[in-house]
Amino acid sequence: MNFCILFGGNSYEHEISIVSAISLKKLLPNLEHFIFLDGQGDFYLIPKDKMQSTFFSQKNYLKCTKLYLQSGGFYQKSFLGFKPLLLPTILCLVHGGDGEDGKIASLLDFFKIPFIGPRNSACVLSFDKELTKLLCYNRDVKSLPFTILYKHEEIPSNLTFPLIIKPARLGSSIGISLAKNQEELEYALEVAFEFDEKVLIEPFINGIKEYNLAGFKGKDGLVFSIIEEPQKKEFLDFDKKYLDFSRTKEIQKANLTPQLEEKLKDNFAKIYNHLFEGALIRCDFFIKDEECYLNEINPIPGSLANYLFSDFKTALEDLSKALPKPKDIRIAYEFLHKIQFAKGK
Amino acid sequence: MNFCILFGGNSYEHEISIVSAISLKKLLPNLEHFIFLDGQGDFYLIPKDKMQSTFFSQKNYLKCTKLYLQSGGFYQKSFLGFKPLLLPTILCLVHGGDGEDGKIASLLDFFKIPFIGPRNSACVLSFDKELTKLLCYNRDVKSLPFTILYKHEEIPSNLTFPLIIKPARLGSSIGISLAKNQEELEYALEVAFEFDEKVLIEPFINGIKEYNLAGFKGKDGLVFSIIEEPQKKEFLDFDKKYLDFSRTKEIQKANLTPQLEEKLKDNFAKIYNHLFEGALIRCDFFIKDEECYLNEINPIPGSLANYLFSDFKTALEDLSKALPKPKDIRIAYEFLHKIQFAKGK
Repeated sequence: MNFCILFGGNSYEHEISIVSAISLKKLLPNLEHFIFLDGQGDFYLIPKDKMQSTFFSQKNYLKCTKLYLQSGGFYQKSFLGFKPLLLPTILCLVHGGDGEDGKIASLLDFFKIPFIGPRNSACVLSFDKELTKLLCYNRDVKSLPFTILYKHEEIPSNLTFPLIIKPARLGSSIGISLAKNQEELEYALEVAFEFDEKVLIEPFINGIKEYNLAGFKGKDGLVFSIIEEPQKKEFLDFDKKYLDFSRTKEIQKANLTPQLEEKLKDNFAKIYNHLFEGALIRCDFFIKDEECYLNEINPIPGSLANYLFSDFKTALEDLSKALPKPKDIRIAYEFLHKIQFAKGK
Repeated sequence: MNFCILFGGNSYEHEISIVSAISLKKLLPNLEHFIFLDGQGDFYLIPKDKMQSTFFSQKNYLKCTKLYLQSGGFYQKSFLGFKPLLLPTILCLVHGGDGEDGKIASLLDFFKIPFIGPRNSACVLSFDKELTKLLCYNRDVKSLPFTILYKHEEIPSNLTFPLIIKPARLGSSIGISLAKNQEELEYALEVAFEFDEKVLIEPFINGIKEYNLAGFKGKDGLVFSIIEEPQKKEFLDFDKKYLDFSRTKEIQKANLTPQLEEKLKDNFAKIYNHLFEGALIRCDFFIKDEECYLNEINPIPGSLANYLFSDFKTALEDLSKALPKPKDIRIAYEFLHKIQFAKGK
């Protein structure tokens, strides 16, 4: 089974997506097809041997074949008009905006292109951290208490330090700061508002245990990865995340009791079911006093969290056989005929 | 100021969208541009004099100029490749799927085409009736209690009749039934599951008062329509809704106390703020014992609820001046340069 990697996009995570795609190329030597989405919204077909970071940072992709979206797939210009490209199932690696906000999922769905990745509503609910909190409430999954602040709104006076300040609609730790007092909070908010009009404020719990679990729905139900306890400083910053997006080596399983492991899987299933079908996602959890809290959902995790699966290739193949099928709606104009008949037309 | 109507789409509300577009053509004689999205996902430029229901039901639109989406707008094929069409701001009238599920909003946003209509996350939260309930919870707006049922799940035994059964992700009253006993419930569920895998069950409250209020955010803040008490039988069915989608005559203001009127507007504002910017929406409320409950959000109401505004044309112009501006993200490859530098490449 073969796949076509779609990566790039107009977002703060554009470059991280390139890193992620290059990692998967190295990991899955059978991959032959790469589609790059540049910052302007144009698609390019990238030859496999050009999949290197300098090729993009030097803008050499502009010399590649430009692609166009039309019903049924990607097309390239030909002598007589347009020629469809015969591509395998798309693997969506567009992290952040465009990819994780639902635009790409909508485009691929609209143009009837099969893909692995979160569908539109899954994107919307995981991209906005306030909506993820709502999803937790809906699915009976615990998460930390939070405050939402919009730009130009007054800072609430009842906050208890230390706090974490996050732009509400960004991934990859961009614009996230820790604030231990009012002065740091004001500065952290300024930083976060650079990236989003809406900011999420959460308590920062020192030394809280963090665990990452990935999974997907395959032909025979949910498939879980191993659980990892990520190495971290106070929290991951953008540069540190580079390692996360380029990882391809399998890691050590976290040391957890079977009860806690079951709890994490149970919470993952509550979040995943129905909504995330078609996608391999990673949920990052906190554990405190034997209780499990969802920290965040990565609907398109860096390098697809391949390092959490003992047989990543087989996992992808299983997932690709369980993609949701869009409903086929037949339009027969029976309603208009009825109205026309009633009006005597 | 001029607009371009975008209508049709692959959904059960395809025909209703045609009715809606024809009504607006009659109401706003200055409209000159109409783009039809057929059931296959193809766009056509429809000449104004062809905007009649028979033109579509007889599939004569297939002879019209086909349009293609590319960055910056709609294009038509020309001798030398593609020619951009210079169109005014799009008015999105694609009701139901495609339009209200966020696909069209995503497409227009992705291709950087200015439009009046709900943005992607607004669509996702109002299209799925379970998510609308979550939004109500989030915004502190009351709504009726509910049960969600997926296809093949067992019917809960603790339900109290009478009930209303609704496909979770459809508009225009399609597939909605009233059930007064277990037998009717089973039949109603069968009907609803024809349209969606997910169904919402709510108590049916006989004789409950219903009020509709439309509005939008203009240059100077929220603008409300007059409040209407819609005429109804037990509840509106699809055929009855035709009247709703083709209405252009202004209606009578509902007889409400100033306190209740204020309450409806206050609840509308809680739902609308930030999320629905760029759109003119209609919220349908229930009032029971002086309490206000949200029944549903119509993010693209039939014929844009023009009949609720005393000066609809001016309202549209005001709205078109307050459209949300997408964030401009500059990609400079600083991150890749840094990694390459660190690696000594």
